[in-house]
This record gives sequence, C-alpha cells and structure tokens, in this order.
Amino acid sequence: MNPPRTDARRHHDPDVRGFASDNYAGVHPEVLAALAVANGGHQVAYGEDAYTDNLQQVVRSHFGPTAEAFPVFNGTGANVVALQAVTDRWGAVICAESAHINVDEGGAPERVGGIKLLTVPTPDGKLTPELIDRQAYGWDDEHRAMPQVVSLAQATELGTVYTPDEIRAICEHAHARGMKVHVDGSRLANAAATLDVPMRTFTNAVGVDLLSLGGTKNGALFGEAVVVLNPDGIRHLKHLRKLSMQLASKMRFVSVQLEALLARDLWLRNARHANEMAQRLAEGVRAVHGVEILYPVQANAVFARLPHEVSERLQKRFRFYFWDEAAGDVRWMCAFDTTEDDVDTFVAALKEEMARS
Amino acid sequence: MNPPRTDARRHHDPDVRGFASDNYAGVHPEVLAALAVANGGHQVAYGEDAYTDNLQQVVRSHFGPTAEAFPVFNGTGANVVALQAVTDRWGAVICAESAHINVDEGGAPERVGGIKLLTVPTPDGKLTPELIDRQAYGWDDEHRAMPQVVSLAQATELGTVYTPDEIRAICEHAHARGMKVHVDGSRLANAAATLDVPMRTFTNAVGVDLLSLGGTKNGALFGEAVVVLNPDGIRHLKHLRKLSMQLASKMRFVSVQLEALLARDLWLRNARHANEMAQRLAEGVRAVHGVEILYPVQANAVFARLPHEVSERLQKRFRFYFWDEAAGDVRWMCAFDTTEDDVDTFVAALKEEMARS
Amino acid sequence: MNPPRTDARRHHDPDVRGFASDNYAGVHPEVLAALAVANGGHQVAYGEDAYTDNLQQVVRSHFGPTAEAFPVFNGTGANVVALQAVTDRWGAVICAESAHINVDEGGAPERVGGIKLLTVPTPDGKLTPELIDRQAYGWDDEHRAMPQVVSLAQATELGTVYTPDEIRAICEHAHARGMKVHVDGSRLANAAATLDVPMRTFTNAVGVDLLSLGGTKNGALFGEAVVVLNPDGIRHLKHLRKLSMQLASKMRFVSVQLEALLARDLWLRNARHANEMAQRLAEGVRAVHGVEILYPVQANAVFARLPHEVSERLQKRFRFYFWDEAAGDVRWMCAFDTTEDDVDTFVAALKEEMARS
Amino acid sequence: MNPPRTDARRHHDPDVRGFASDNYAGVHPEVLAALAVANGGHQVAYGEDAYTDNLQQVVRSHFGPTAEAFPVFNGTGANVVALQAVTDRWGAVICAESAHINVDEGGAPERVGGIKLLTVPTPDGKLTPELIDRQAYGWDDEHRAMPQVVSLAQATELGTVYTPDEIRAICEHAHARGMKVHVDGSRLANAAATLDVPMRTFTNAVGVDLLSLGGTKNGALFGEAVVVLNPDGIRHLKHLRKLSMQLASKMRFVSVQLEALLARDLWLRNARHANEMAQRLAEGVRAVHGVEILYPVQANAVFARLPHEVSERLQKRFRFYFWDEAAGDVRWMCAFDTTEDDVDTFVAALKEEMARS
Repeated sequence: MNPPRTDARRHHDPDVRGFASDNYAGVHPEVLAALAVANGGHQVAYGEDAYTDNLQQVVRSHFGPTAEAFPVFNGTGANVVALQAVTDRWGAVICAESAHINVDEGGAPERVGGIKLLTVPTPDGKLTPELIDRQAYGWDDEHRAMPQVVSLAQATELGTVYTPDEIRAICEHAHARGMKVHVDGSRLANAAATLDVPMRTFTNAVGVDLLSLGGTKNGALFGEAVVVLNPDGIRHLKHLRKLSMQLASKMRFVSVQLEALLARDLWLRNARHANEMAQRLAEGVRAVHGVEILYPVQANAVFARLPHEVSERLQKRFRFYFWDEAAGDVRWMCAFDTTEDDVDTFVAALKEEMARS
Repeated sequence: MNPPRTDARRHHDPDVRGFASDNYAGVHPEVLAALAVANGGHQVAYGEDAYTDNLQQVVRSHFGPTAEAFPVFNGTGANVVALQAVTDRWGAVICAESAHINVDEGGAPERVGGIKLLTVPTPDGKLTPELIDRQAYGWDDEHRAMPQVVSLAQATELGTVYTPDEIRAICEHAHARGMKVHVDGSRLANAAATLDVPMRTFTNAVGVDLLSLGGTKNGALFGEAVVVLNPDGIRHLKHLRKLSMQLASKMRFVSVQLEALLARDLWLRNARHANEMAQRLAEGVRAVHGVEILYPVQANAVFARLPHEVSERLQKRFRFYFWDEAAGDVRWMCAFDTTEDDVDTFVAALKEEMARS
Repeated sequence: MNPPRTDARRHHDPDVRGFASDNYAGVHPEVLAALAVANGGHQVAYGEDAYTDNLQQVVRSHFGPTAEAFPVFNGTGANVVALQAVTDRWGAVICAESAHINVDEGGAPERVGGIKLLTVPTPDGKLTPELIDRQAYGWDDEHRAMPQVVSLAQATELGTVYTPDEIRAICEHAHARGMKVHVDGSRLANAAATLDVPMRTFTNAVGVDLLSLGGTKNGALFGEAVVVLNPDGIRHLKHLRKLSMQLASKMRFVSVQLEALLARDLWLRNARHANEMAQRLAEGVRAVHGVEILYPVQANAVFARLPHEVSERLQKRFRFYFWDEAAGDVRWMCAFDTTEDDVDTFVAALKEEMARS
Repeated sequence: MNPPRTDARRHHDPDVRGFASDNYAGVHPEVLAALAVANGGHQVAYGEDAYTDNLQQVVRSHFGPTAEAFPVFNGTGANVVALQAVTDRWGAVICAESAHINVDEGGAPERVGGIKLLTVPTPDGKLTPELIDRQAYGWDDEHRAMPQVVSLAQATELGTVYTPDEIRAICEHAHARGMKVHVDGSRLANAAATLDVPMRTFTNAVGVDLLSLGGTKNGALFGEAVVVLNPDGIRHLKHLRKLSMQLASKMRFVSVQLEALLARDLWLRNARHANEMAQRLAEGVRAVHGVEILYPVQANAVFARLPHEVSERLQKRFRFYFWDEAAGDVRWMCAFDTTEDDVDTFVAALKEEMARS
C-alpha cells in the first residue's frame, strides 16, 4: 500500500480565507522562522532550555520583574492550569455566563480541576463589581463552593474590551473579599492594541494576579503561557502544569514562538491588523441596511444579527458561525492574515445577499 | 525597556549533543519543512482540516482500515486520553511498576482520569500473562478498582522490546478476562525498527485495542496521536480529548508533522538510526571493563551500572541522568540526531574516566 | 481529665422546635425502634445482609419489579452517585438554577463527579421542555460538555410539586434527545402526599430513569437510596457507590430505617403531616398583612417576603433562614414533628412582630 | 401488593456470629441507647448541634487541646477527607502496599481526591523510615506526584501494632522531609488496648498530624471522625467534608455515638474484649497441628495459613474470608461481641476439619 505523500499534493488553497475563527489562520512567517532558529543541537527538555529562560526576560519586559511565564500548549490548558493554581479543592470561580471557560472548554475546568463556575449574565461579556456580587458571598458556608477567584477575559468572548479602570475596580473589589483575579488573555494583544497602552497597564498595574497569555490566535502555530504576576500564594505551578498534561517536552519550540511574538512588536502588529480589519468590516456592515451590529466592536470580532436565510446563503460562500442561531446572531472574526480585500469582498457579498432577501 | 531580540543571539550551540533524553533533540528538517507546507490560508480549526483528514489515510495505511487517529499534544496527554477512553469511572489499569504512566507523568492518570494503576514489578519492564495475573482479579468486588485495561509500553521504559507473540499472548489473556489492551507507543517506531516488521504486526494484528503513537521522540517538535485500532466500546474520544485539554486549535500543524514522519519512511529512518547508535554505544560500553549493561539493548536506550564517581565526572562533560542513583544505574538515550562521532567521543570519555577511578 | 458524661446531662430541650430545616428534626420513634430490631448477631457487611435484601422487596412494592435500591448515607451522596451512573466522563446535567445540586452541595457534582451543570433560571423551581431546550443542544460539539441527563427535584427546592403529566412531558422530551431523567427525591414523599398518588405514578410510570429517594427528611436519622428504575445502560452502581464513599459497612442499619419508613405507611404519614403543617402555616401567614407568600405551597415549605427587621426580630425567637437576604425572602420548613401548636405560636409571633414594625 | 412488614419477621438469628469481619457485628447497646437520648426536639443541622459541640470536649480529653473532630460517615470517607486536607492538587501519599487505602477503598483516594499512592511492600503491614525512603524523594521533580504525606494504619490491616517509638521515628523522619503523618485509626482503640496506653501516647504525643478515628468497628452503627491534631496548614476541613459528601445533616446522631464510645471507657472495653478474643483464638489455633499463624497477633485479627480444602469446609460452618486464596491464607476477625464460646466452638471445628484432611 502506498501512503499519500506530503509533497505530491496541496491539501488546501492558501489564498482562501473566511471569518469563522482567528484559529483558522495559519502561523505568521516570523514565527515559523523562529522555529528554525531554535532547532539544531540538544536542549534540556521540559523547560530548562535557553529559549524558555530567555522568554522569562521577554515576559518581564512586558509585565515587570515579578512576572513568571509557564508556557503551555493551548488556551484551555492555560486557563485550567491558572485557575487550579489559585483555587483550593473547595474553590469556585466567578465568571461571565458567556466566558470561554464556561461555554467552550468542554467542561475541562469542572472535569480536570473540579472547579465550580459561578456564572453571571452580562449585557456585553464584561463583569463589574455589582455583577460579581451576585455570586460573591458565602465564604464560610460549606454548602457552597467557595468563591476564590474572579476570572475575566480581555478582550471578552463578545469582542468587548475593559478599560484599565474597569479592571482596577474589579481587582480592588475582588481583593477586598479575599479573591484573586485571573485574566483569560487569549486575545490580550488585541485589547492592548485597542487601548493603545502596554499590556501591563491593564494587568499587573491594576492588580491582576495571573493571566493566560495567548499566542495561538496572535500568530503562533500553537502555544500560550500562564503568566503569574503576583506570586503570593501561588506555588508549584510547574507541578500543576505537568499533571494537567500541559508540559511540552521540547519546550524550546513553544517558548521561541512566544518570544518571536513578544520580543519585538510582532504581537502588536498582528493584533492591530486584526482589529483594523474588524473595524473595516464593522464599517462595511453598518452601511448594509437590515444588519444590526450587536456589541461595541473593540477587538477583532464583529457580532451581528441578520435574517437567518441570508446567513445561510452567505455561509455557502464564506466560513463563519452562528452565535445564537435562534436569534439569528452570527460572529465574524478577523485574524492577523485577514486582508482588506477579504473584508471588502465579504461586505459586498453580504450586501448582495441582503438585497436578495 | 528593550526586550531581548531573537535574531541578535544564538541561545545555544547547535552542535552540542548528549545522552540524557531523546527529548533533548530538536526537530527533523523534513518535519520543519512540512510545517511551512501546511501554512498559508485558512483551515477549519480543531481537526476538520485537510491535513488531519489526510493523516487518517496515512494512519490507516499503517494500521488498517478500522484505525482512527486523534492527534494530541504530548505523550502524557495521549496516554491519559487513551486510558480514559477504555475505563469506566470505577476502572483500573494494570501496568509495569516501571511504566512511564506510573513513574513519570506527575500523577496525571490518577489526577485527571481518576484512574488507579495496579502495578506489577517486572525484571525488564515487560509484562507477561503471569505478571498480569498478580493484579487481574476481583472484577465483581467493589472494594477494588476494577481492572479494565492492561497497558504496556513498546518499546518499554527500560529499552526492551516485546515480540509480536508476547503481545499476542497478553492480548489474548487480557481479552479473555474482559480487559482491553493499550500500548504506550511513544517509541513504537523504535520497536518496529528493532523487530523489522510493520507496526501493525505487533499491534492490531495481535489484538491491541488502542495505542499512544509517538511523534515527538521520533523527530517532531511536538505531537502524538491516540490511535484507536478496535473501535468496539470506544466512544466520543473527541470529547475526551477536548476536556483533557489536548485539542489543538490549529490542528493542521500537529497532523502535518505526523504525516511528515509516517507518510513515507522518515519515522523508520529516524528510529533505525537512533537504535543503531544505541547498539554502537552498547558495543563500545561492553569493551569498557567495570561497566555493566543492565537490560537487553533493544531500542534506543542503554542502561548501565558503573561507579558513582565516574558517572559524576562524566556528567560534567555530557548530559545524562541517573536512573537509580543509589545503585549507580544510569540511562543513556540515543536520538535521531545522535552521530557516530557523538557515540565514539562519549565511549572514549567513559574509558578515560573509568581508567581514572 | 474527666471527660463529660453522656448520662449526666441533657444537651438540649427536646420540646424546642423551629422552622429552619426539616433536618433539624430528630428521628421518628418507629425508625429508632427498627434499629433495635436489626441489632444483635452478625450480618454480612456492605449490603449482603437480610435487611438490605428485604428492602429490595419493599422498594419494588413501590416502584415495580425493575426497581433496584442502593442505600447510601446522605442526599448529596445519592445525587452524585446517581448522576455519575448516567453520565460519561464528558457528560453534563441540565437542572434548574435553584436546584439543590447546583446551590447546596458544595460543588460535589463538579468536584467528585467532574460533572458540569447546565443551569436554567425558572420562575418556581420547575423545569419544562421549553426551559430544558435552553441548554439541550450541541451533543456532537466537543467544545461543550454533553447534555446527557435532566435532573429535576420532586418536590422542588422552592416547595413546588410537578404533576405526573409535567414529569411525563419532561421525560418524553429528554428521551427523544437521548437524555435520561433523574429525580432528586429528598422530599419525594411530600410530593406523593400532595398529589395523593403512589410514588410510582410520577416516577417510573411516566419515564423517570433513576432517583434519589430521601429518608432523612422523612424521619430517619440518616439514610437515602439511589433507586434505579430503568436499568438500561446503568452498570456497576455498587462500584460507583463504593468509590463515592457512600457504602455503609453495617448497611443493615441504613436499610432497616428505609424499610421502617416505606414498608407500611410511615413515609406517607410523616410527609402528610409535614405538608399539613405547611398549609396551616401558609393560612396563618396569609392572614398577616404585609407578608407575601412567594411560591405555591405544595409541599412542606413556605417561602415568604417580609420586612427585613421583622425577620431579624423573629429569628431571635425561632430558628429559620433567609433565602434571599437582599430581597427579604425567608424560608419556613415544616417537619414530621412540627405540631399545630408550633405553627400557631409562630404565626402569633409573626403577627406581633409585624405589628411592631 | 402488600409489602413485607418489619415486625412480622426476624430477618436473622441474632445468636449467629462468625469471624469474617468486625463490620459484621451490630451496634453496642449503650450506643443504641445514646441515639434515643439525642432524639427529640430540634437541633441545628450539619454539625452546629449540642452533641457535636460536646464531642469536641470528649475528643480533646483524649487528644489534647488542639484536637478538633470532624464526624463523618465511614472509614473511606474519613481517610479520603483527611488525605485531601494535607495534600495539594499535586500531592502523593506514601503508604504500605497492604494499606486499606490502597487495596480496599475502590480507588476512592485516586478517584475522589486525585491522589497518587506511592506504595511500599512491607513484611508485616508496618512502615519504617527505611521503607518510607523507597518512595520519599523527588519533591522538586514535577514528573513525579509530590510525596506530601505518610499514611500508616494503627492497628495495621494485618493486625499488627506500632509501638509509640516506632510512630515517633516515622513522624520525625517524615517531618524532616516536609511531609505530614496521617494515621488510619479505624482500629485505633484496639491498638490502645494492646499497648495499654492512652490513644494520645502514640498519636499527638509522638507527632501524628491527623487521624481517622474509627467508631463503626468499635461498636457504633456507623460513624467515624477525622481528628486534626496539629492544625498547622490544615484549613477549611468542613468544606472538604461537605464536597466529599461526608457531611451528615442530622449530625447529632453521629456525634452522640462517638461520644457514647469515647466519653467513658466503652471504646476501651469493646477493643479489649475483641483483642482478648483474638488472643484466645490464636492460642487455640496454635494448638492445632498444621495451621500456621502468619503475623504477630497484636489486635483483633488472626491471619493463618492452612490447607485450602479445610478452609472451604470450615467456611460452610462459619463465615470468614480468604486473604490470599492462592497461598491458602485466611483472616479471622474478632469483634466486640465475639464470645468465648464463639471462639471455642470455632477452634473445635478447625481441629475437626484439620483431622479430616
């Protein structure tokens, strides 16, 4: 039997792009190049290599001298390792009902971490001290999993972005009640690009304790990091990472990707571009009668409501997902590799399909 | 603050190699090249991409038409996903005391899978029906976690290799008692190279139900796959993979690496080379008076016993690990990139240090 | 040091009763007497005793010939064992937001069972097919814990009771979607007393698959049972019970209590009495101006809204809990030992305190 | 259908006793009487009752002023709650291979606590510092679950008893390595009776950090307690107990049983009697040619080796279990209600059956 050959085919057309997910994009060429740089020779496995060591310096240049990065494989892994690090066996995590950890991680926080999520409905994916208080009580009541962490996403799952002051207020509120604050930053770069401030300005500068720092959606082929900002009370994270099956043996290849993004400005260029494409898309969409944009477009996502049959026709031409199929809500994501042409073509198609309905 | 720059330094000397671990090696150039092939354009995330689809064909060309591959990030992930797939909440796994799942996975099987390991001491890392019977009993006794799976490693953690008949005997024994058989194949390629038969000859042809197929130690930068050989009673493995945090968003980059190894003969070339270097090393070591080789050298590992102070002096010149420090046992691993010169230099150094003691 | 002596003191006044919880009551004298009957001589431990065997007959007389009872220690234990029996490792459970399993079990379903709860807000604690549909979707989507069970409580945590037809509709809806139905029946007897039908009429007769059958609140000193009504697909529950630490060694003493309640009509007498006391209490409360009863009073609970300071003054005279302190909502529970005099005295006090405000 | 009636039958002959398990015995009449004392009136549920409060005084009279008791349902529950209290998510427990937590708890430590057990073979069920060292290493190595606790049983599963000095040596050894010491004391009373010293002499006086204190085998109908001796680093045990499903709602009925045993000398009378019966049994057995006693008889168990067919004939007349059926090893347990006549009759039968073989 002759197995299929890599070099005898092209599995896909590299010019085809859609708006389904920022995970549909490939890897940025500079990241790919960095992998080759890190190759050759032997490096100590499991994180004691020179690239991981260097990544610590890079991360500290962003988040200050107390920061420590623990590279992991993926976003769910980063979140579940981070949340386990700041919850006891009896702990619970307060988050938005729409949070990725609640709706899109296959129950991993509950199943792997044994963590109960105490969820709060939000208008736009963002928590506030008032919303947190709907679940922040009963610390001494053993009948209730103990609220020990507030987890917010920056940018949120709905494409909105917290201001530094909003995060500061949440941190102060949480800390005053003995809770830590975790940020799911799978799109932290997009938030920084929007706010036009360094990442530290809305994380350690305002009290965030630890975060999941995204690389994959920012242009890596895979790789994220748990970044501990405030080490108080956080111990043995490397043990947690290992038992959570997130320890890469050849870790240099995770670390060098994150370094390629973060050491200079690739992280920001990629995020800015994705955000700009989302703005361009939003502007285009706003000009189409009958299509409603649902949330402030503050990162690289546009959520819209339009007639169901229009979406279905459009999906035959471009990949994207329904967000709430019953309501007719859809999500359009832009990535680091989305082009102006991609956007304009899509908007033209949207107009066309709307006109037919 | 100016963060350190990727291109302004070389973190390591690419010519330096040791014998500490096959995970210290980098990535094979053909695998690196495959990543570039897979890049460009958009691909559906989470495994519905063309590369993962193609990988299924490749895997079936090795393991037959019922095989299904589920790419994951790392070996612990592969093992824990696989074992969860064939155990109920009340299930236990019989394995050798020296098994990687028992001694080197940070308790992940117990912690993530809730799985009790029923271990058996072995002379050489290999299970037999008789050894299995020391733990294979009490299926109806709820005071005992129920033995549902036998997990063996091929090659074993001690560098030994089962013959196809030995695995067949284990499978028949296990199946007759209602247990499934899992193979930890992080070094399956090395076993195939040793036995000089296709991988299927000692897996599905003799009754193995599912396996963890290694890529990382075989020359990938990361990536393994759970391969289901006998789908009876195994359901929803994709859900298990997700909740076990082993689902890569940009899965094409895992799949294309495995394809690069498996589609033609790179997997075998790499494994053969590593095995040959281990044979060369063993021959060299056997000629050194006072050094005892501990187990049959059947894959890419050489275990030896030598004076403790010699090991310590040697460790200042080459990286390797003690296996049992009290006994003076050490482990020397060869990788796909180990050279004859690496081996000869090391053997010469060993001779030298032995002569000094 | 002389330790305190049992017979030299009375730790409490046996005439004092309140409305805080049906768990504040003691044990019914007939149940206590049954313990003495079961004592003496040796019985096989862990459930192979004559009393547990007899309990099976008793349970079948209530729930039909396919029913099988697994006695456990407490309600959380019954619920978590039952839910584990009908969920895979990737499974989720749909329940009301107000469900005991969601708000009052310390995260045990998540922590011990790894089960994600998919919750739905309800007006009165009761699920409907429409409410279930807010969470019943995405079975093939591994990013979502798979909805495999609908769990409802009869009577509900808010003191309301489903009709048999309402439960039938839920069962048909759930089964049509491949989900099983679990009933948290810690107050199943109260529901039967309200509906004035046998317990089977609103459980196996309408499609319920398994239930947690309460004993403690019904007059036992401790003891519940997981009752499997439809054994399809439910295996090795005794293993689940053991590993969930709910297997009593001297099980005869659990079983004989349940037998004492269920073999004749003690279960119904106790439940009817508690319900009647709740009706008497509700009538008394309705006559007090300014106190609002919040939900239909259909079991042994009365929920009311009244001025916060009145509740606080009243709590100095009688034990009871706030349900939603911010809203001024309180819960008053009646038990098998609540007397008419208890109720009348309490209503008089309520009137008195309302008059003062 | 008329369900069977409690008072219309005797399910068992109260004069029949065997040697299968100390869990086959019923409840001591003084414990049963205590339940009636605690009944009547209302008591705050979940442990804030007068009986549980009083139990604290009783426990402190035994174990000193820092001791705190947390009543639970059963021995597995006590052990798993206790071990969770002193392990992090990444922690492991060192214990004898023959330990109850390893062989007889259905995998609950692994499944509920996620705890890896690092086991050591022992000649007689007893750990020593040397034996502990076979597993006590690698605290900084995340590939290994971290050894955080040594758990020993007093009396052991093999009926042997540690001297206070032996436990002191283990505690010093463990503490010097940063590990805590847990005692599985389901038969702690039997050990105290053998050693003829107070329980504190071989627990807190020699450094034990926490223990599982048995009630069931000592004459209760059910009920054990986790007793924290050294509160350093142990927090929120009541949350752990709840989420481990070991929190009794009507806790007064657990606490009053433990009080009945411990407040005066019932615990010691029961244990002494069981031990004396085991001594009488051992003496009788020693006089029977061809039966070998396997371990020192130091508590209430006699392990013996005799011809398999003799055991089988004997099992038709008296209940008892094989311990290692292949080797012909059996276990004979004495309980608080075993009589001299029970022993003598059994020894006579043993002689008779041996004579026939």
